[in-house]
Parts: sequence; C-alpha cells; structure tokens
Amino acid sequence: MTQSAQQPLSSTLGIVTPQTARFSKPLKLESGDVLDSYELVYETYGELNAARSNGILLCHALTGDHHAAGLHSDDPKTAGWWDQIVGPGKPIDTNKFFVVSPNNLGGCSGSAGPTSINPQTGKVYGPDFPFVTVNDFVESQRRLADTLEISQWAAVIGGSLGGMQVLEWSITHPERLRHAIVIAAAAKLSAQNIAFNEVARQAIRTDPDYCDGRYFEQDKVPHRGLRVARMVGHITYLSDDKMASKFGRNLRDKTQLDYRFDTEFEVESYLRYQGDQFINRFDANTYLLMTKALDYFDPAAKTNDDLNQALAVAKAKFLVISFSSDWRFPVERSREIVRALQNNSLDVSYAEIESPHGHDSFLLDVPDYVRVLSAYIDRVASEAETISP
Amino acid sequence: MTQSAQQPLSSTLGIVTPQTARFSKPLKLESGDVLDSYELVYETYGELNAARSNGILLCHALTGDHHAAGLHSDDPKTAGWWDQIVGPGKPIDTNKFFVVSPNNLGGCSGSAGPTSINPQTGKVYGPDFPFVTVNDFVESQRRLADTLEISQWAAVIGGSLGGMQVLEWSITHPERLRHAIVIAAAAKLSAQNIAFNEVARQAIRTDPDYCDGRYFEQDKVPHRGLRVARMVGHITYLSDDKMASKFGRNLRDKTQLDYRFDTEFEVESYLRYQGDQFINRFDANTYLLMTKALDYFDPAAKTNDDLNQALAVAKAKFLVISFSSDWRFPVERSREIVRALQNNSLDVSYAEIESPHGHDSFLLDVPDYVRVLSAYIDRVASEAETISP
Repeated sequence: MTQSAQQPLSSTLGIVTPQTARFSKPLKLESGDVLDSYELVYETYGELNAARSNGILLCHALTGDHHAAGLHSDDPKTAGWWDQIVGPGKPIDTNKFFVVSPNNLGGCSGSAGPTSINPQTGKVYGPDFPFVTVNDFVESQRRLADTLEISQWAAVIGGSLGGMQVLEWSITHPERLRHAIVIAAAAKLSAQNIAFNEVARQAIRTDPDYCDGRYFEQDKVPHRGLRVARMVGHITYLSDDKMASKFGRNLRDKTQLDYRFDTEFEVESYLRYQGDQFINRFDANTYLLMTKALDYFDPAAKTNDDLNQALAVAKAKFLVISFSSDWRFPVERSREIVRALQNNSLDVSYAEIESPHGHDSFLLDVPDYVRVLSAYIDRVASEAETISP
Repeated sequence: MTQSAQQPLSSTLGIVTPQTARFSKPLKLESGDVLDSYELVYETYGELNAARSNGILLCHALTGDHHAAGLHSDDPKTAGWWDQIVGPGKPIDTNKFFVVSPNNLGGCSGSAGPTSINPQTGKVYGPDFPFVTVNDFVESQRRLADTLEISQWAAVIGGSLGGMQVLEWSITHPERLRHAIVIAAAAKLSAQNIAFNEVARQAIRTDPDYCDGRYFEQDKVPHRGLRVARMVGHITYLSDDKMASKFGRNLRDKTQLDYRFDTEFEVESYLRYQGDQFINRFDANTYLLMTKALDYFDPAAKTNDDLNQALAVAKAKFLVISFSSDWRFPVERSREIVRALQNNSLDVSYAEIESPHGHDSFLLDVPDYVRVLSAYIDRVASEAETISP
C-alpha cells in the first residue's frame, strides 16, 4: 500500500522510540513448527490508565510496521503510516488511549522474522524462518498484551491484513477485546487475490538473486523480483478510476510518443518509482511469508466453510468499514462479514464509504471514513472511562 | 489469452499450410522507422469468388497468430484458435467466404519480427526490430489485400488487439471494408491496462537472461520474466467470478495445507502451468513490442481526444460485441465506441453478452455470442453475394 502517500511533515506525537519485548517461552505455530524464543518490536502512544482499560491494539497490513504514529527515532523526517489518525486530539486520541502498535511476527522491521538472527544458529533466519499465519500474529500479540498487563483491549483495529487480525482476535480471544474495528478486509482471499500473490511470489522466487532464499549469505538481494512483486501489488491497491484520473494516458515529461521502452506514460514512471522505493525498505523472504499469511487466512475453514459458525464465539462490538472502489477486497467481502456478525446477533456498525482511492483508502484521509472512525472511537473512549481499576 | 482452451480434436478444414507474402517496397512505420522489406505469413480458408467480394480479414490478438482455423501443417494435433468459428458450415462459413488470417507484423510466428532475420545484417533482429503500431499492422495488411487483389473486404473481424485493428481499418481505409466486427476491444488502453503491461515488460526486461534483448546471441532466453508476464496477463483475461467458480480456494492434490511455497492452491498451479506453456511458444522481444502496440493505440489522439471525430471518416457497418465479466476491456469501453459510431450516424449493432469467462470470452464458445456473430455474418454473406464481378 502507498503508506507514505499523505503523510504530514511533522507529528504532534514527536519522536517515538520503539521498544522490544522478548519471549522465551516456545510458541507453537499453526504450521506445527515451534519458535523457541522470539522478539516483538512495538511502539506505544499515550498512557495506560489505572484501570488498564484504555488499551488499543493496532494491527498493520502486508508491508506495514510498528511505526504507526509520531516521527521515527532513527529517521525524524518520516511520520508513521497512520499519523493523521493517531495522536493527541486525533481520531484515536492518545490523550485518552494507550495505543500499542507491534510489528508482526515474521516481519522485517525488528520483530523476529527472516531478517533477524536465529538464536539456534547465530545466523540470519532467511528462508528458515517458519511460516506464520494470522493466528500466529494474534497469539504473539496476546502474549504482548499479557506482558503489558492488558487483560482486555478497549479496541483492536486494523485494515486489510490488519483487519484479518482483528477478526482472528475476536474469534480466538473473544473476552480480550471490547471493540473490533475491521477495515477494508475480507474473511478469506478469493482465487484472484491468491493469483496476484502467487505472481508476486513467482517474480521473487525465480529471480536468480533469490538463491533459494539464502541471498544474504551470498551478498545478493532479489531486487528485480521484489520490484515486480510490488508493482503488481500496487496496481491492486489503486482503483481503475483513480489511476485514470491521476495518470490517464498522460505522457511523462514530453508531448510526443518517442517509441522507446523508457517511460512513455506517467503511470509507468509511477509504478517503477513505487517498485524502486519498496526494494530499499522491505525484505523478499518476509514478503513471501506475509503473502502466504494472507492466502492462508480463512477462519471458516475450521467450521465447514460456515463464517456464521466461525464468528459465533465472538463477543466484541464491531465496526466494519469498506470502500466503494476497493477491488482487492470489494464491499461484498465486508458485507459477508457483517451478515455473519448479524446472524450471531452481535452489535455491528457497518459503513460503506464512497472513495475513489481503491484499497489504499484505508490509509488515506478520506473525510467520510475519518468521520465514521472518529465517531465510533468516541464511543469506545466513553465506555473505557467507565471501567474502574 | 487461453487460445487452446476449447479446441476440438479435429477440424473440418483439415490440415492448412501457411503462405508467405514478401514485400520489397519499404514500409514507413508510425514511429518514423522504415522496414526496407518484410514478409507476412498468413493462412487462407475457402475460395475467393469471381467478384472478389467475399474476403474476410481476421485480425489476431496479443499472442495470437495466423493459425486461426484447421489443423497445423507442422503439428496436426493442434487446431487453430478460432476453429470453432471458422470452417465449412461454421459461423464464418468457408463455403461462402475467403478468409485471410495473417500473423501480425512484428509477430513471432513467421511474419517479420524480432525472431526473423534482418536482411540488412543477416542476423536475427532481436531488439533491433522497430516498434510497430496498430496502424502499421493495418498498413501491412492493406498491402497484403492489394497482393491478393481484394479491393474491399466483406468484413474485417477481430477481438481485443484484433478489434483495435478493425477500428483502425475503418478509419484509415474506410472504403476497403463493408463490415467491421469489433469484439472485446477498446478505443484506447486505460492507465490500469498500461500499468499491467508495464509490469509484464519490467518482468521481462529485468530478467538477467534478457541481455538487453540480445538473448539469442548469448544462447539464453528470459524464461522467468516471460513466465511472470504471462501469469499477470492471464489474471486479467479471466473474471474474478470465473476464477472463484473454477478454483475457489481448492487445494492442489491434497486435503490439508502443508505450509510450503510449492503449490498450495489450485489457482497457483493453473497460473504456473499457463506461464510454463507460454514460454515455449512465444518470444520475449515480440511480447514487449505487442504490449507497446496496445499501449500506443489511441486513434482519437489525432483528433484532440475526440473519438467521434476520429471515427467520422468511417463508412463500414459495425458490429460491436462486449462481455459482461470482461474487466480488462469492460463493457463501458465498447459503449464508448458504439456512441461515437452512432454520433456519426453509422450503421451499428451492439451486443453486450452475459458471460462469466471475462476477457477470454471472445475466444470461447459462449452460445449467445456465437449466435449474435453468426446472425450478423449471415447478413454479411447475403450482401457479398449481390456484388457482381
């Protein structure tokens, strides 16, 4: 997603320093593999109240990280990916909430993942890092909640892959969250979604510099494959209409076609830029793992493909948000979730937001979206205040 | 496109042997480059009548070729890509029509293109073959028509990139066709269309075995890039619904996830198969050129982006066909063409066919589609008969 699309130059949270939690109790993963020990890097914004009732967990999307708000301690020119939403006086008001934002297990921004050191070998995990699933993300976050002594989140919030984590929290730990905010998500990927992920994976895995995932050992990086993977992903984050209005068939810095493979149209230049930026900030093995986590997510698979039954255990109140022009996870996919929640007589608010920005809308300042989100979070805040220590 | 999707095991046309036309008069291309001489390979089905009035020109799509019908002379197990439509007693009835099916200029199936010999150097053209456009395809086909002494086609017919050639014929040689049949096409690519093409090109051009296009000289082939290019293209040929009904989230030859990068879901296996098949039959430089020809097509660019004005010179009668689930060239793109034709008071029939097969529909036996096409071609046939020598 275009996480740097609409970021401010400053942040009212100022510079934020990430923290690291170390877990030495083995974690059995959904695949059957076991992580003997692992670290999670995370940031927090605001203060935990005496009742420990005002915690909000943010779950990030495919290529996101723990740096949701404020300025980076190691790069103060860059604000977090949701800085316009999280901060003092902002929709997720850090004067009221204690916001926790971890980097997902398997990530490449500090949590245990393919780029971190395998304590058993003293070497970088690379392709030996085990497959992780949304369920594993949630289990590692549950342990983080225990460490922080937060027995119940005021809300768990996430968009896209983050929204899947919210759903998983509501199913596997129904008592541990009061509100679930699921944005631009789906209860499972479609065949087309999986197909796009598979193209991205094939681009990476057939890059000769991929070296079966051991590129670090050979001092190589599969830049080419990762770049193509990002480009194809990026097309699915934007709507057709948005691409048309943003670029149309405009030529790049010229008035006439010049019949070359160099950039002819602006949209080509834009995509290449997105690809080039991405290879400097993301790891190929991690991208592979995260796309697989997306593919595997399907909570209803355990209940005979019955989403009603899968969500029957949920207790949270829900806000579900979808965007009109999102063709990666179209509004129908959110409606499926809403219907299943309603069929379980759960408290569910649903907003279908008109937005031209496609899937990326969940990261952008779409006024109707921010309004709906703010209003709902005000409700979460007033409930959190009434809980006594 | 999945050109071998629904082919019969035999063809009523029997074995067809391609022919070659050599042109020694230089051809000035739209890019400004000149081809001093070139060859076009083509097949014909049926007999030209005495009035020379029953010629039909078939224009092929992105990765198609001249082998539209009958069995290959060098591979009698494979029937042409439109064999179910073209043949004795079939919708394009070769008892009535003389059908001409050339391989596009710049192609890799026998016409002059990147895989053919540059007469000036005696070596394979490779990346030195000039950029070709839809206008250039049409100009080379016009010369073929002259060679065959066909002064006016009964109809010019094509789908997708083939449909663009039909539009171009109607604009640049309005007197030389009586009917124009434009199927699953668009008057220009959208930014999203160009973006998908650019991803495909980047996959090919960043493959280390691409060698700046001189892979033949180095005894290499950019298989990996071409495979990824085909996979991403293939997703856009199928509808989301079709992928869902064909594959859903079905696992490949197993009942449980096994947490590997090997094929997990059927749709992954299908895409890989499509990619693997393609690299054995298509040339990478040619794929690059053909995607650029798609990008460049925009007849209204010469008339201030006014398609009405671009089509004002057309004289043919038109049949325009689109498919409900085609998201590569959605029905709106065909409606634009139809409106522009109607605004010029031209004779235009338009059919929007309900089909679940996406863009690929134009190559498949969709009953409503075949019915509409057959009925229209009957009209073309009865008109052709009334023309005296």
